[in-house]
Amino acid sequence: MSVDTLRLIVSSPDQPGIIAAVARFLHLRGASIVELDQYTSEPSGGQFYLRTEFTIAPERRAGLSDQFATAIAEPFGMRWRFSDARQVKRIAILASRADHCLVDLLWRWRRGELAADVTLVASNHPVLRDTVTGFGVPFHEVPVRPDARDAAEGTLADLLAGQCDLIVLARYMQILSGGFLEKVGVPVINIHHSFLPAFPGAGPYERARQRGVKLIGATAHYVTAALDEGPIIEQDVIRTSHRDTTATLVRLGADVERTVLARAVEWHCADRLLQYDNRVLVF
Amino acid sequence: MSVDTLRLIVSSPDQPGIIAAVARFLHLRGASIVELDQYTSEPSGGQFYLRTEFTIAPERRAGLSDQFATAIAEPFGMRWRFSDARQVKRIAILASRADHCLVDLLWRWRRGELAADVTLVASNHPVLRDTVTGFGVPFHEVPVRPDARDAAEGTLADLLAGQCDLIVLARYMQILSGGFLEKVGVPVINIHHSFLPAFPGAGPYERARQRGVKLIGATAHYVTAALDEGPIIEQDVIRTSHRDTTATLVRLGADVERTVLARAVEWHCADRLLQYDNRVLVF
Amino acid sequence: MSVDTLRLIVSSPDQPGIIAAVARFLHLRGASIVELDQYTSEPSGGQFYLRTEFTIAPERRAGLSDQFATAIAEPFGMRWRFSDARQVKRIAILASRADHCLVDLLWRWRRGELAADVTLVASNHPVLRDTVTGFGVPFHEVPVRPDARDAAEGTLADLLAGQCDLIVLARYMQILSGGFLEKVGVPVINIHHSFLPAFPGAGPYERARQRGVKLIGATAHYVTAALDEGPIIEQDVIRTSHRDTTATLVRLGADVERTVLARAVEWHCADRLLQYDNRVLVF
Amino acid sequence: MSVDTLRLIVSSPDQPGIIAAVARFLHLRGASIVELDQYTSEPSGGQFYLRTEFTIAPERRAGLSDQFATAIAEPFGMRWRFSDARQVKRIAILASRADHCLVDLLWRWRRGELAADVTLVASNHPVLRDTVTGFGVPFHEVPVRPDARDAAEGTLADLLAGQCDLIVLARYMQILSGGFLEKVGVPVINIHHSFLPAFPGAGPYERARQRGVKLIGATAHYVTAALDEGPIIEQDVIRTSHRDTTATLVRLGADVERTVLARAVEWHCADRLLQYDNRVLVF
Repeated sequence: MSVDTLRLIVSSPDQPGIIAAVARFLHLRGASIVELDQYTSEPSGGQFYLRTEFTIAPERRAGLSDQFATAIAEPFGMRWRFSDARQVKRIAILASRADHCLVDLLWRWRRGELAADVTLVASNHPVLRDTVTGFGVPFHEVPVRPDARDAAEGTLADLLAGQCDLIVLARYMQILSGGFLEKVGVPVINIHHSFLPAFPGAGPYERARQRGVKLIGATAHYVTAALDEGPIIEQDVIRTSHRDTTATLVRLGADVERTVLARAVEWHCADRLLQYDNRVLVF
Repeated sequence: MSVDTLRLIVSSPDQPGIIAAVARFLHLRGASIVELDQYTSEPSGGQFYLRTEFTIAPERRAGLSDQFATAIAEPFGMRWRFSDARQVKRIAILASRADHCLVDLLWRWRRGELAADVTLVASNHPVLRDTVTGFGVPFHEVPVRPDARDAAEGTLADLLAGQCDLIVLARYMQILSGGFLEKVGVPVINIHHSFLPAFPGAGPYERARQRGVKLIGATAHYVTAALDEGPIIEQDVIRTSHRDTTATLVRLGADVERTVLARAVEWHCADRLLQYDNRVLVF
Repeated sequence: MSVDTLRLIVSSPDQPGIIAAVARFLHLRGASIVELDQYTSEPSGGQFYLRTEFTIAPERRAGLSDQFATAIAEPFGMRWRFSDARQVKRIAILASRADHCLVDLLWRWRRGELAADVTLVASNHPVLRDTVTGFGVPFHEVPVRPDARDAAEGTLADLLAGQCDLIVLARYMQILSGGFLEKVGVPVINIHHSFLPAFPGAGPYERARQRGVKLIGATAHYVTAALDEGPIIEQDVIRTSHRDTTATLVRLGADVERTVLARAVEWHCADRLLQYDNRVLVF
Repeated sequence: MSVDTLRLIVSSPDQPGIIAAVARFLHLRGASIVELDQYTSEPSGGQFYLRTEFTIAPERRAGLSDQFATAIAEPFGMRWRFSDARQVKRIAILASRADHCLVDLLWRWRRGELAADVTLVASNHPVLRDTVTGFGVPFHEVPVRPDARDAAEGTLADLLAGQCDLIVLARYMQILSGGFLEKVGVPVINIHHSFLPAFPGAGPYERARQRGVKLIGATAHYVTAALDEGPIIEQDVIRTSHRDTTATLVRLGADVERTVLARAVEWHCADRLLQYDNRVLVF
């Protein structure tokens, strides 16, 4: 007897009885909870977050979402969504010249480590074309001329709209406008070196070396229009010493960047990331 | 309006509806769930584990445990216990000559980092007496003569019986018998270097140095009679290099040992550790 | 036959032959090199740094320093110093109310882990008096009133002048002036949380929590008058999650702070730290 | 004016004056020391190890090696070799079915992170052929039939002999005999999971999960005939929890394995690894 695996993600103002109501709703429809995790932001009067993964017979799925809306979501004032574990997310990757994050994602995808489909790669440079097509993934060059940024962004948005559930900026070195984010309408994950706000702008590794830092790192975050930095998904660091040249720091940084970005993408694809204010809960 | 904070720890054969039943039970008695975490060992036919922390009005606590037993625990075949967050656990620490784990625990306890009372320290050596009494904790010397191990263990068991909810072996260098464990009847947490089974017996750090290991570490575990090593609670490592002498390795090892032991004790005192076969779930 | 262990620390403009000259000088005086480490800041035209530890018969030490000055240091334009491993550094610790860094240093000192003497502790608060005197170390309260900062700093400088070779700020919450640093005339090591420059000012842990950071850390550095932050000696981090309250972050931060500060002090006392521009070389 | 970069690796019984003699020898031939690191195994009567990197004018290189042999190496009883930084090592990689270590090495090589040439890949399975040839590297299938192991090993040795300066076992699942090691005559680096000796044989990750370990890791080591495990080059770990399935452990293990192996190969190619008894010094 085959079963489907679904996920339910919920947030709402905290109040007693939410878990009981959700768990009972699922149980009465024959679902079997495999995982359930929750978080309450404050002891009282806070915000409530829940992620649960459950199995259910295919024939019991009809109307599940509507019934949940009426019986549970509305009374509790929830934001919520169901997600089918088998319907993997479609990922579009944007890159520039650096290949470390891009190749690491493509390679994990080919190994089956990402529960996702990489549907296309777009870049403002042609250099990574062969690398990408070698993985059997379509490559689109969308050049960005300084005097025609808006047009390029429009081309990119047209290319992406409706083609992906997630956009990953794998060291894509162009700034994206709020209008672009709105137009594509899907979450965007970015990776940057973790010196920010310490060394903004050009040459962060050279400046980190001059400052004599003992750790370098990387931060993966969701991209938002209103803020310089969106909500942090994951961070990690690696040790350095005075013997490391700037070139070595860049290489060590590349290793941390690809590891951190891969974790962020993996968690997003498994519906493990919930946003709360400007924070990300990792469930 | 004051509330009490309680914890409920449950394990049972997995079956649909457990979370719904537990959450509904608590909700109907006016409890408000603050934290809930669960684990299912296998997709189907496995073992189910749950820890939840909830607040409840003091006047609603009467009969809670009995009602839970009848309404929930028996039908589901659960092992379970309630625990009151305010009734902190009483800890007895056994030590020998080394002070690093002992002092770290006493110091965290004095800072209020451990939700526990350290009620006594016992040692087979007198050297740590002043250290212990300086913290205002009673110190008992229980010498262990090679020809009178059983008698010493009996003295120790008499001293501890009923006086503590947890025994911590903070580098206590005597082996404890199954009979002792049974007599004291409370969990026992031990810390050892993490080379096992690689370097059993005497001089593990010297042998690790000769082997040229690049990491040394520590493991905290529950003590059991039947097995050489009981269930692992926590592990960590620290880097070493060929420049480290054996003395340096011992010192680095001391730093890892005290960190790992402190985490294990803290988690135990917060009722975050559940045993499953020979494994420990950290909730 | 007893030998003395000395260290020689050298910096100079880089040029060929420095190591040959230094090593030959030591060899001709019967010294035996135990450790030698060097660093050249640039492939050519950079700055040269060397630390060597050597043993020498006591009767061969007479005039060593003068001969080195004439034969080696002057021709190469070196800055240099010899240091006797047996003449351990005298440390004065400044603290405020928080005890975690202070106690960790005192405890390592008592265990013999620091090749140093802790000669006194001074604080602008009386709360740590018993803790300090319990270690057999003199405690001086030097209150700092907002309207009499200069006077307090003068009192502190008088207390410290000539009494120590190193001042450690173990969470001392007062700013020290350039004049103070000049007057005491010894290196000063400080520890701060590693969010800087991200979360300067009050409440860094609360703000880190609101920002949803996934790592918190600590930085030990030398204190300088001219710069907001002096040269970095050591840094480390620890993972956090959304489940950690601000109080938990503060506690985790305390653990990283004391670890990082202890390493920095240990390295300084072993003459392993060389300053180069605004960087620290760890040898 | 162009210069050559050479490395000199030395080991000998410890005695005073070695560094002076080596440094002076190089200085008198116009060499300029860029890096020099040394290690003495014991305060007295131990073994001495030195690695130095220096630049020298091409026209001063003639006879360097012969002169060093006569003037320095023989009097001190040294084992020694010069190595030219521009003559990168030729690497042959052996793999089976798993691609994670292999692809990581090929990818780092293509990015220019390894100062080495990957000259060929051989495997006992055909599955990785396209992956390897996609990098422009020759792929050789050398099947190993249970009844013809010696023949297969002979074929492999013939293929490799004289074609490489280093053999890397990138999850090559066949045991190599002492005779093979002797015939190929170059160093061999292997990677294995770091549970050894804890979980030898089949299914180490499943058994680690059943044991409830909190860390998994990897060890890179030189392969020797006489010992089960050769000298350890590098080790690292990654955290796991009870939520990780065996499949997740295998994937986390793959990430640690490829990181650790890449570091070991990089250090070997930079002549940073010296063997001392059964230990490896990382300079």
